[in-house]
Amino acid sequence: MALTLVLGGARSGKSSHAEALAEGLGAPWHYIATAQAYDDEMVERIALHRSRRGAGWVTHDAPHDLCRTLDEVPADAVLLLDCLTLWLSNRMLAEADVAAESAALADRLARRAGPSFVVSNEVGLGIVPDNALARRFRDAQGRLNQMVAAKADTVIFMVAGLPMKVK
Amino acid sequence: MALTLVLGGARSGKSSHAEALAEGLGAPWHYIATAQAYDDEMVERIALHRSRRGAGWVTHDAPHDLCRTLDEVPADAVLLLDCLTLWLSNRMLAEADVAAESAALADRLARRAGPSFVVSNEVGLGIVPDNALARRFRDAQGRLNQMVAAKADTVIFMVAGLPMKVK
Amino acid sequence: MALTLVLGGARSGKSSHAEALAEGLGAPWHYIATAQAYDDEMVERIALHRSRRGAGWVTHDAPHDLCRTLDEVPADAVLLLDCLTLWLSNRMLAEADVAAESAALADRLARRAGPSFVVSNEVGLGIVPDNALARRFRDAQGRLNQMVAAKADTVIFMVAGLPMKVK
Repeated sequence: MALTLVLGGARSGKSSHAEALAEGLGAPWHYIATAQAYDDEMVERIALHRSRRGAGWVTHDAPHDLCRTLDEVPADAVLLLDCLTLWLSNRMLAEADVAAESAALADRLARRAGPSFVVSNEVGLGIVPDNALARRFRDAQGRLNQMVAAKADTVIFMVAGLPMKVK
Repeated sequence: MALTLVLGGARSGKSSHAEALAEGLGAPWHYIATAQAYDDEMVERIALHRSRRGAGWVTHDAPHDLCRTLDEVPADAVLLLDCLTLWLSNRMLAEADVAAESAALADRLARRAGPSFVVSNEVGLGIVPDNALARRFRDAQGRLNQMVAAKADTVIFMVAGLPMKVK
Repeated sequence: MALTLVLGGARSGKSSHAEALAEGLGAPWHYIATAQAYDDEMVERIALHRSRRGAGWVTHDAPHDLCRTLDEVPADAVLLLDCLTLWLSNRMLAEADVAAESAALADRLARRAGPSFVVSNEVGLGIVPDNALARRFRDAQGRLNQMVAAKADTVIFMVAGLPMKVK
């Protein structure tokens, strides 16, 4: 039904805000985690996010196959997808066709019957990165964010833990 | 008459939005391109931008001498200048006095009779860059953006393809 | 009484805007500077900021011990604290417990009787930094900004010298 994109920088309170929005609706809530625990820093972040969520959450891990996982979540359930940035990073490192997959993902999210809250990073507001992979990543992330924002009913830009409504 | 600054990050939809605003007014439209095609990545970006614009556009190339090119565009014509960031980068690499040139450019844009849409990047919202040239660039870009924004009638900040009105 | 957080990127006009807000209230104004002049670039920036402020300003230097300096400023005085980012950087390089100190600082600012204007940088909207210290810094900065924003009555996000009201 309603698709909400919660966009922001690092430590801007995106995940907490999206969780609060989801929990404002009735349980059960379905959580799709895209993180892969490939180092200690990431293990710590995943544990922190997981501990913040209480009972009533069903967790799905989908570092790669996001559209298939979306099919497994009940159509009317409240969904929190956290986050597009890690998924995109995983797909790019796997040398997938991220442009095509981004368009397919945006379409799939827009077709959900239940309310969906999708977290993503804005990464394009710094100086041009030195290395070509980082430049390709920020282009792909910007395009993915635009695709999802175009389909979304609500787009929120987080600043220091506070939501600014963009759409 | 009216000066509009369209500001945003990489892949935030700045150019598309500025083009749509310009095309909302009557043709012919004058396009000032500041890009220099010094590598394959840039050649690709220029071609992509050019192909998106249809008939009715007159293109001027001005990687350096922007004020002179502004004198060549008919005074009442609709103008799209894309973008300040590449111009500033070109001028800085040419070791120009970018502070003085930025002030002169902002004045010149404010004096145009016709509607002007100016695209620029916000580059100051990441971590402090390691190298001194990048730091000087982001300072110069921030100052140029402030100068143009101060003269502008409308300032738009793009987030994921969506415009937020700042002024 | 009222706590205002002025947040923005590099060269976004944060300091000028915060100074204008402070000077809109009656003198004397108390200025807490957190910068340490460890290189020529920083000496230049400090001198520039100092020259912009006129008479009627009392300056305190507090690169490290910010809570103690806050105790020295008269309780009802107008305060400008510029900026949290340099203080955090100084404390992190000194290997302090920045999470605990950030929480204590946010509490201390919220308890001031007089109006306080606090300047800080948003640094999390670029690509993930290569080095671990920069990543830790941007996390700590994001958390500090969130803590102060949560206690603030007013939060302003600066774009090209123009204020956007977030709270």
